[in-house]
Amino acid sequence: MRLATPGYLRIGQSNSLVATYGGGEANVAVSLANFGNQVGFVTLLPNNEIAEAAIRELKGMGVDTNAILRGGERMGIYFLETGAVSRPSKVIYDRAYSAFSEVRSGMFDWDAIFEDVEWFHWTGITPAISKGAAEACLEAIKIANKKGITVSTDLNYRNSLWRYGQTAQEVMPEMVSACDVILGNEEDATMALGIAPEGIDFHSGKISPTAYLSVSQQLMRKFPRCKLVITTLRGSVNANHNSWTGVLYDGKQLFEAPTYQITNIVDRVGGGDSFMGGLIYGLLSYKTDLQCALNFAVAASCLKHTIYGDYNRVSVDEVEKLMKGDASGRVVR
Amino acid sequence: MRLATPGYLRIGQSNSLVATYGGGEANVAVSLANFGNQVGFVTLLPNNEIAEAAIRELKGMGVDTNAILRGGERMGIYFLETGAVSRPSKVIYDRAYSAFSEVRSGMFDWDAIFEDVEWFHWTGITPAISKGAAEACLEAIKIANKKGITVSTDLNYRNSLWRYGQTAQEVMPEMVSACDVILGNEEDATMALGIAPEGIDFHSGKISPTAYLSVSQQLMRKFPRCKLVITTLRGSVNANHNSWTGVLYDGKQLFEAPTYQITNIVDRVGGGDSFMGGLIYGLLSYKTDLQCALNFAVAASCLKHTIYGDYNRVSVDEVEKLMKGDASGRVVR
Amino acid sequence: MRLATPGYLRIGQSNSLVATYGGGEANVAVSLANFGNQVGFVTLLPNNEIAEAAIRELKGMGVDTNAILRGGERMGIYFLETGAVSRPSKVIYDRAYSAFSEVRSGMFDWDAIFEDVEWFHWTGITPAISKGAAEACLEAIKIANKKGITVSTDLNYRNSLWRYGQTAQEVMPEMVSACDVILGNEEDATMALGIAPEGIDFHSGKISPTAYLSVSQQLMRKFPRCKLVITTLRGSVNANHNSWTGVLYDGKQLFEAPTYQITNIVDRVGGGDSFMGGLIYGLLSYKTDLQCALNFAVAASCLKHTIYGDYNRVSVDEVEKLMKGDASGRVVR
Amino acid sequence: MRLATPGYLRIGQSNSLVATYGGGEANVAVSLANFGNQVGFVTLLPNNEIAEAAIRELKGMGVDTNAILRGGERMGIYFLETGAVSRPSKVIYDRAYSAFSEVRSGMFDWDAIFEDVEWFHWTGITPAISKGAAEACLEAIKIANKKGITVSTDLNYRNSLWRYGQTAQEVMPEMVSACDVILGNEEDATMALGIAPEGIDFHSGKISPTAYLSVSQQLMRKFPRCKLVITTLRGSVNANHNSWTGVLYDGKQLFEAPTYQITNIVDRVGGGDSFMGGLIYGLLSYKTDLQCALNFAVAASCLKHTIYGDYNRVSVDEVEKLMKGDASGRVVR
Amino acid sequence: MRLATPGYLRIGQSNSLVATYGGGEANVAVSLANFGNQVGFVTLLPNNEIAEAAIRELKGMGVDTNAILRGGERMGIYFLETGAVSRPSKVIYDRAYSAFSEVRSGMFDWDAIFEDVEWFHWTGITPAISKGAAEACLEAIKIANKKGITVSTDLNYRNSLWRYGQTAQEVMPEMVSACDVILGNEEDATMALGIAPEGIDFHSGKISPTAYLSVSQQLMRKFPRCKLVITTLRGSVNANHNSWTGVLYDGKQLFEAPTYQITNIVDRVGGGDSFMGGLIYGLLSYKTDLQCALNFAVAASCLKHTIYGDYNRVSVDEVEKLMKGDASGRVVR
Amino acid sequence: MRLATPGYLRIGQSNSLVATYGGGEANVAVSLANFGNQVGFVTLLPNNEIAEAAIRELKGMGVDTNAILRGGERMGIYFLETGAVSRPSKVIYDRAYSAFSEVRSGMFDWDAIFEDVEWFHWTGITPAISKGAAEACLEAIKIANKKGITVSTDLNYRNSLWRYGQTAQEVMPEMVSACDVILGNEEDATMALGIAPEGIDFHSGKISPTAYLSVSQQLMRKFPRCKLVITTLRGSVNANHNSWTGVLYDGKQLFEAPTYQITNIVDRVGGGDSFMGGLIYGLLSYKTDLQCALNFAVAASCLKHTIYGDYNRVSVDEVEKLMKGDASGRVVR
Repeated sequence: MRLATPGYLRIGQSNSLVATYGGGEANVAVSLANFGNQVGFVTLLPNNEIAEAAIRELKGMGVDTNAILRGGERMGIYFLETGAVSRPSKVIYDRAYSAFSEVRSGMFDWDAIFEDVEWFHWTGITPAISKGAAEACLEAIKIANKKGITVSTDLNYRNSLWRYGQTAQEVMPEMVSACDVILGNEEDATMALGIAPEGIDFHSGKISPTAYLSVSQQLMRKFPRCKLVITTLRGSVNANHNSWTGVLYDGKQLFEAPTYQITNIVDRVGGGDSFMGGLIYGLLSYKTDLQCALNFAVAASCLKHTIYGDYNRVSVDEVEKLMKGDASGRVVR
Repeated sequence: MRLATPGYLRIGQSNSLVATYGGGEANVAVSLANFGNQVGFVTLLPNNEIAEAAIRELKGMGVDTNAILRGGERMGIYFLETGAVSRPSKVIYDRAYSAFSEVRSGMFDWDAIFEDVEWFHWTGITPAISKGAAEACLEAIKIANKKGITVSTDLNYRNSLWRYGQTAQEVMPEMVSACDVILGNEEDATMALGIAPEGIDFHSGKISPTAYLSVSQQLMRKFPRCKLVITTLRGSVNANHNSWTGVLYDGKQLFEAPTYQITNIVDRVGGGDSFMGGLIYGLLSYKTDLQCALNFAVAASCLKHTIYGDYNRVSVDEVEKLMKGDASGRVVR
Repeated sequence: MRLATPGYLRIGQSNSLVATYGGGEANVAVSLANFGNQVGFVTLLPNNEIAEAAIRELKGMGVDTNAILRGGERMGIYFLETGAVSRPSKVIYDRAYSAFSEVRSGMFDWDAIFEDVEWFHWTGITPAISKGAAEACLEAIKIANKKGITVSTDLNYRNSLWRYGQTAQEVMPEMVSACDVILGNEEDATMALGIAPEGIDFHSGKISPTAYLSVSQQLMRKFPRCKLVITTLRGSVNANHNSWTGVLYDGKQLFEAPTYQITNIVDRVGGGDSFMGGLIYGLLSYKTDLQCALNFAVAASCLKHTIYGDYNRVSVDEVEKLMKGDASGRVVR
Repeated sequence: MRLATPGYLRIGQSNSLVATYGGGEANVAVSLANFGNQVGFVTLLPNNEIAEAAIRELKGMGVDTNAILRGGERMGIYFLETGAVSRPSKVIYDRAYSAFSEVRSGMFDWDAIFEDVEWFHWTGITPAISKGAAEACLEAIKIANKKGITVSTDLNYRNSLWRYGQTAQEVMPEMVSACDVILGNEEDATMALGIAPEGIDFHSGKISPTAYLSVSQQLMRKFPRCKLVITTLRGSVNANHNSWTGVLYDGKQLFEAPTYQITNIVDRVGGGDSFMGGLIYGLLSYKTDLQCALNFAVAASCLKHTIYGDYNRVSVDEVEKLMKGDASGRVVR
Repeated sequence: MRLATPGYLRIGQSNSLVATYGGGEANVAVSLANFGNQVGFVTLLPNNEIAEAAIRELKGMGVDTNAILRGGERMGIYFLETGAVSRPSKVIYDRAYSAFSEVRSGMFDWDAIFEDVEWFHWTGITPAISKGAAEACLEAIKIANKKGITVSTDLNYRNSLWRYGQTAQEVMPEMVSACDVILGNEEDATMALGIAPEGIDFHSGKISPTAYLSVSQQLMRKFPRCKLVITTLRGSVNANHNSWTGVLYDGKQLFEAPTYQITNIVDRVGGGDSFMGGLIYGLLSYKTDLQCALNFAVAASCLKHTIYGDYNRVSVDEVEKLMKGDASGRVVR
Repeated sequence: MRLATPGYLRIGQSNSLVATYGGGEANVAVSLANFGNQVGFVTLLPNNEIAEAAIRELKGMGVDTNAILRGGERMGIYFLETGAVSRPSKVIYDRAYSAFSEVRSGMFDWDAIFEDVEWFHWTGITPAISKGAAEACLEAIKIANKKGITVSTDLNYRNSLWRYGQTAQEVMPEMVSACDVILGNEEDATMALGIAPEGIDFHSGKISPTAYLSVSQQLMRKFPRCKLVITTLRGSVNANHNSWTGVLYDGKQLFEAPTYQITNIVDRVGGGDSFMGGLIYGLLSYKTDLQCALNFAVAASCLKHTIYGDYNRVSVDEVEKLMKGDASGRVVR
């Protein structure tokens, strides 16, 4: 549950908060459902009306919620204050002791959940929450590997979340090594795995796609199961204006996508998740056309920045229109 | 009646809709009333409180509503979702079977309505709605011609509205041929009349004013009664940022206006209508100074993009301040 | 009390008004309190709940309100309509006969108020309100001078406020001559004191810092007590986009600060006050490092433009982060 | 202009205020316009957008605003906090120095204003505002008398408004003595004219209609021109629940109306004005059927208590439906 | 789609409308889904985002939407103004030419839809919309009869909807004669079928349950297939306060339920539908305990009056708590 | 922090939540500050902006916040859904692992905090939160006893909060035995201490004051230090309508207060706390006039039910006006 102040108000300036639902994996699931894929979401949510509302929204979006278990004390919350120009957005996590942090291995019936499943996606948020969550996730990854299900991860490093005594660099490598597809943003590989690009200042507002060739190659060497390494590249001009693109490395070639100037961001939270959703859709739909899959992912997540809330509420048609180059924003009647 | 989601929310994201009133011709009428012209509005509206509210607003704005007839089943609605950056705004028309579509020739007492009237303006929306509306409009145009009233039209082509079995290119020419002043946007002449500029890509974000000399000349040749052809030129950089200008051709010379960069659009719906309102005011007030009339129209409609709702709520003073070059936006205290 | 229409709505477009509190000196006081300084605010407010609410907010912010007297008929109001692009913001003052205009010399016990006080700040709004307010302010300045308290002023010229029969140029010089620190914006010295820069067009959107060396020197010559002259420099590209910087002259050297491009202004009212708050903090904290004090003031007030309402709700940490060059607006988690 | 906190929030609890327009005489004018009467409104309003919005609303309602003069400094404001159960509503007047208080005799061209006018209504608010307003009102009354126009007054005593040095009991009698119809609530005659009912405690929640026979008789004796004395009778059970009725005395007989239990008041401000509007309509429409006129006034103002804002937005049909006894509130489809 | 003014505002008083979804049959479906029943909803909705949002909400509630066809021009709308005390709520239907009115027999694959279905419910709204809708509904009823599915109807007479040339009394009898369970309110049997209770004034605020014994007996005689006749009984004290109960007749006995005083109605639209939802749940769950089924229906729909929107968002636990007599409204922590 | 749905919406029906601050002891502190008492509040709050906002509000209200420590992970939250008629309000606690639950004995410098303090108040919420909080509270009570500070408690039993392994009946008696003044509602003594009135059904809506004589006597016998036992008596007619009164026993006599019918509750959360605030004020101000102190407490808390949020925003004047019998709710101008 995300609680955001309206407009650009600071926390404490408004007694009205906008509640929406979201979270790394849920955001990917909603993207895929919107694109017409069949998708389910696995988590543990408490037995209260707040959780009911979150589940109701996922169901409405077409996400299968049958595998969601109920229990635990509370639902994780984060407070969001939206920045402007040189004032950054601010996230205050209130996820401690969430139901999800009580997840343990053995809790989910992965055999049933993975029946007829083609793809399993997890993000670096999950092992950051608690030791139990990390173990349950590793358990799922291993079973998915056995069943021949494609496994993807978004490294999604959040420094402030790793608080149960282990570091990302201790926990993540074993989990990542079982993945077929690895996504990270321009900082993730460095922070989560210690693999850094050279000569990049994340706060300079400029990003060099080619600097990520070396990062991708190092990742592939370290995690030989991995077939695709994808990096989202955000150039932060200021809080309202980012550039946005991504690169994909398949072990042979670095595919680059067009760079979008997102000059009037509506909501950038969930940008990476919408990229992942677009990428999975692209890889499943365009098959071997990796350039096309990458372009779809970048265009889909570019559109996400124009949509309020964590979820990317766009259709395949809308993404493809942008992919084909129409960024004019002319009214559709 | 326009029902818009607040902010940049998509339809379905908000259970609160902002209701405002507007529509091509009403918008022109309100512009003129705000500029101090005496103006009346002719239409057919149903006998319910929704229509009452629309009429009340027009009356408050100073538009004479005495010629509005009451009847028919419903009031036309359109739903609006405001786009951002590369996500276009979206209009869902719900105008089918509106009271206005039940307009028939013979319904209005044009002799009484046109008493002491100097100017009659209609737009291409009207004949698109229904055969009856097209016939009633043609009837009015002919009577206006007879009475020596200046007749202007805004071609205003809306593909999705022409659904009663005839096309714009079948219906419009006879109506346009009786007009003294013709306004269109960069696409209208092509779509409504089949007269296209050369080498223009409407989605490229760049517009060449001079390409419209040929369109204007073709229009004048086809419609010899016409004395002035005006084209609004919108360069869509993205959904938040448009360039905006216009050209006027009087049969001899192509007048060009300054181009405004509207970098943070508040609401672009009604932009063309506010141009027409400004133009009629300009032609009536600056008389033979066509450059000045054009500049007024462009400045007035530039300001419209900063105002929420279909109506252009600006005064002559405000437009003239911008015409004179002060676009600095410094606070007025 | 400020009553603003929401978003970019014009006055009369919304029946909901957003009420916030603020005003030149109060804004400076809140800035300082947020930066951790001990600060008090002196004024006269009526005996009603509106004034209670204003005082409650100041107390919550950490401003000492014990010296506020109660009496008079009403609280000053101003109505604010926020502009966009080429449509300027509009302020309608409704401050006539406010309680504050009933302030008279002898009303405040300045000896008690100035106990253990290091700095006294007043603005040009105060003497503009009424003769009594001007006299009370002069009285306070003189007592502050005697006690060796640093006195600063923000010239803050508001043409529409000077209505009790005397002009700024008649009243201000005596008051300014007793000040140690003088702040003005690019127009104030001209309007309040008749000292103009050369070759500057305030509406051109471009500002030359060096043109203010001569203004500063003239001010110092005219007011020899003054040790520092500071000028805020706003380049109005349009109502959404201003450039922002300032210069400081210490009698020897013109210090220039970096120029910020504030491309998506949230609220520019109170910008100058937040500069003054930052400057006082900077001068008290960085002592002889005038460049640093100036840079802090510019960065603090740059951030103000991203915050709704008159008050600058930022911390020293946030300002220093921006001072150090991080304007990327990347999300803080 | 009325600025109200939303719902039942106290002043200071909400930073959003709901702005509506209203005021004793304007409310009566709007009632009459809604009932289909031709009605104009005379006042002095400042030259700003706040006043424009107020005028725009009156025009929309069908009130003729041509006689409204523009000038003066500010528009009168009142702040409203809506009470509940045992907590009363609270009005904070901020009308001092309003444009209206600058009204002077000689300002209005009463001869032109009264052309073809049948009825002139004023309220006790007007002479309370300023000496000039009282004199201008008396001037109008006298001219109306000369022209044979029916003059009515609503005594409308507001203790907190009489502040210019004269009391209601000094000013009102001369004005009231020229009236044909006098309306007051259960307290007005006492407060404005010193004529009290016997044995009534206004705060007891119970009102005896017959106690007002003597008040009416005393009024008629004191003001022999008066043909009708009407008293609205409000029984305040609590802030949400009032009983409501009225009595009319024609010099011979005391007509009593049914008593309505208004158990869930939406907005009681303007209740008396809506009674007056209903009464004038009733007297003009039902002519000699005084019982019917009274019943219409009581029913109209009963409905007013269910409508937000000062204005009574009801039609003759709606009032007559209630008059005929259908208070069931069954949904109208 | 229902568009309601907020609070008790009249249409035209607010430019913000609250959009919710609902409609007779959908409301029953949502009730049943909330009670844990498996339920599907059959209709025709247009291909636009408004319809998507409606479907998304139904899916979120757990209603199976797979049988919903897409097509037609527009979605039916109704505007709602919520009444207070003696001012009734007002519904303005804008359902003409809705997609649903284009339903035709043969359009739906009833055999597939009715697979494993136990109960089919339709309401009198459906045949009122269009001839096609009436025929498709009759078609469904007949197939349901053949398959041994229980058929129920809510007579739901809406005078303003029957506009296609046939009356309810012409169309309904054939349809009703195939039903096993008939529900009506205190007026429906009279209006839809011409079977009236004796000595009842619907607007008196008082309802006598026993008067409905005769109505029920007449209905059973006229429609011998019918096994249960249920009547909801609403006593309209005023728009905020209704009494609420119901009676059930099984051919032998008239079961009466407790009467609830709903003194502070939040939203009464959908009250009858929530009764039907509760009744179907009750008949399926409590089987032969008809008293218990009736009590559940009355309690469920009593709670509906406290919930905003057409849908009844309550659980079985909440209804049973009220059924058992706890109407104290004590806070649940 | 309390997060409430607006109006009567259920959780999940609104994506906008109203955030206010409150909590048992804070509510009492604010009441006392509003009545003009000097009061401080002691707690542990996390180092984030949410907590800053809460502190800012307390400071604005005049509560001394200097003794508030900062630390811990999160701020306790509760979600509130406001009930209507037979649907109860619902509170979902999300207080687990709040900063306050990390309070330990030894953390606060009670000697400094209690300097010049006359009264110490705690509630049964505190020991329910965690073992550490219970121990710290007991520590404070003992030091207060030693210093001769009056100690009061509100038993405030919340079943769902006692979750750390000990029951209220195990923990509370030692703490209560050191109190001079004990307040409970009609259920608290039973639940927290096992001392029940006879013949009372809390859900019947009727409460017999005298039944509490025996409870009071039992409490005094069990806790001989106690000098006053006070019981608030709420009769829940339904969620909108409660009766409200209280009784006070001083070991000799049972004082009864008038009973208020609160027919249109605005917000009943914090009702008991406002009673306690009123009682402490009353005992300190009216000294030995226990009847008057009780009446003040009942009237103050009656008014609280008309005020949104946990805090009781009323003045002594307002309470005394009600105490003197004016519950008419007539508008105060």
